[in-house]
Amino acid sequence: MNILILGGGGVIGQKLGRALLRRGHLRGRDIASLTLADVVDPAPVEGARSLTCDIADPASVAAAIPEGTDVIFLLAAIVSAHAEEEFDAGMSINLMGTLNVLNRCRALGTKPVVVFSSSIAVYGGEVPDPILDHTLLNPQTSYGTQKAIGELLLNDFSRKGFVDGRGFRLPTISVRPGKPNRAASSFMSSILREPLNGQEAVCPVTEDFAHYYLSPRRCVENLILGAELAEADLGQNRNMMMPGRMWTIAQLIEAMTAVAGPEPARLIRWEQQPEVERIVKGWRFDLRPEKSVKLGLSADDSFEDNIRFYIEDDRPRA
Amino acid sequence: MNILILGGGGVIGQKLGRALLRRGHLRGRDIASLTLADVVDPAPVEGARSLTCDIADPASVAAAIPEGTDVIFLLAAIVSAHAEEEFDAGMSINLMGTLNVLNRCRALGTKPVVVFSSSIAVYGGEVPDPILDHTLLNPQTSYGTQKAIGELLLNDFSRKGFVDGRGFRLPTISVRPGKPNRAASSFMSSILREPLNGQEAVCPVTEDFAHYYLSPRRCVENLILGAELAEADLGQNRNMMMPGRMWTIAQLIEAMTAVAGPEPARLIRWEQQPEVERIVKGWRFDLRPEKSVKLGLSADDSFEDNIRFYIEDDRPRA
Repeated sequence: MNILILGGGGVIGQKLGRALLRRGHLRGRDIASLTLADVVDPAPVEGARSLTCDIADPASVAAAIPEGTDVIFLLAAIVSAHAEEEFDAGMSINLMGTLNVLNRCRALGTKPVVVFSSSIAVYGGEVPDPILDHTLLNPQTSYGTQKAIGELLLNDFSRKGFVDGRGFRLPTISVRPGKPNRAASSFMSSILREPLNGQEAVCPVTEDFAHYYLSPRRCVENLILGAELAEADLGQNRNMMMPGRMWTIAQLIEAMTAVAGPEPARLIRWEQQPEVERIVKGWRFDLRPEKSVKLGLSADDSFEDNIRFYIEDDRPRA
Repeated sequence: MNILILGGGGVIGQKLGRALLRRGHLRGRDIASLTLADVVDPAPVEGARSLTCDIADPASVAAAIPEGTDVIFLLAAIVSAHAEEEFDAGMSINLMGTLNVLNRCRALGTKPVVVFSSSIAVYGGEVPDPILDHTLLNPQTSYGTQKAIGELLLNDFSRKGFVDGRGFRLPTISVRPGKPNRAASSFMSSILREPLNGQEAVCPVTEDFAHYYLSPRRCVENLILGAELAEADLGQNRNMMMPGRMWTIAQLIEAMTAVAGPEPARLIRWEQQPEVERIVKGWRFDLRPEKSVKLGLSADDSFEDNIRFYIEDDRPRA
């Protein structure tokens, strides 16, 4: 079992790599090799190879996906606000990059498993709430558009037998460790992470803003479960929502206070940012996954868990 | 008003070109030029220029869409069974071709109107009937996949202000004049057209097979209406079903008999073809367009009209 994580330098890629190595096996076979690839050399993970790969470049993709690659986690992407600002970069990485990976997998002729990270940013526009498994994808960002296209390609390449694809629309990941990134959702972690680290953070929306969340720990578990699913159980749509839960900003902060006391919440400054609001309010939050839940994927039990997971897994030691 | 029809050599392209020239104006302005472009030189239409254009080639697209182009009808495509047999040709014409056209329009900087012909082949898979405006696109063919991707691109290029796009999911066009083509739906015209021309035809499905139809005459009217729509009325999804009606094969034949007498129906041979059935039974036929009907697009009143339109507009004179 040879595994490649594209986007292996990111938060989820790194955690996934470590979780796979702890586990030691996937799809009934021992893990013989694990490679983390990213556009800049990923942080080293003991037991894994690190590789530089630009998925916008077919030759670089071919080098990263040698013969004998069994499972590819395709997590690499230009995130939402970045793809909104730099349209061409988004098209090149998110759309053409995904196509390059699928084309390379097809050329292998061995039908590798491709686990694709889509996003709930595929939802928006003219669809009634709640969002069901068969709701139209009507994204209102370039990032969401490129992810929705990736899903369609994954389905068709799978239907043709070129890959064994499975795609998961990730909820907003919180509490995400590390630094803020260029995702419009970045604040949905930083208003918790920075205060839990004893630092100030800015909340650009009002406290009644509701959204759909999942912890990094549970996301990694779901991605591994997703890779394990039998192809026959995937049906005619290889893409599905990854389960999450809907919370308001007020509820996130209550959970933080319940776990870590009243101090962190005092470090949040409230400062509305119209450009961020415009993007995130176009997203949907009342999602009702049925297919993925039936297949065994799951959400966090409470947002207090998300806070605890951050403290246990990620908070920098003093 | 300078108009370009890509796919101008096809049945709808030719009829649309003639209809536009008869009309003389579009979007409140006189038509100064009309160009029909296709991969092989389109049949000449009086008053129109003809041009060869390979939409898979960006340079060819740039030459076909000079500065000053106001409205582009993007009808060019590799059809369903053809795209199923030749995957790479479908990807190159239907996906990259559409992207080439949108990129060229963006480069113009003048936000031309793009009228995109999508298809009801975008429907299929895991969605409940009936098909509503907000039903998931879950195509089960490469053609349907490529059209669904075209819709997403059209929306995003429109949202970004690069084009003023509007896309219409065409029902199966019947009675389509001319020769059978490589669409899996080709028989849905030929079982009527050939008998009305005094020739034999083969029906590869049983007579209870239901599908969703529109006449070429009404399709052209709808495309022109689609070009005329005000951008503000298009909402957050530029793509919509073009209205049609659901009929069974038995109903098509009854309508033919009502208009043309009992002779033609005797020329139909019944011969099930599993490969054609596999494709067309993956399509959906119980479609309930609301948005396009509200915007003024319409279906045929009865299938007898479709038969009459063929006899009036297209049947070769004896």
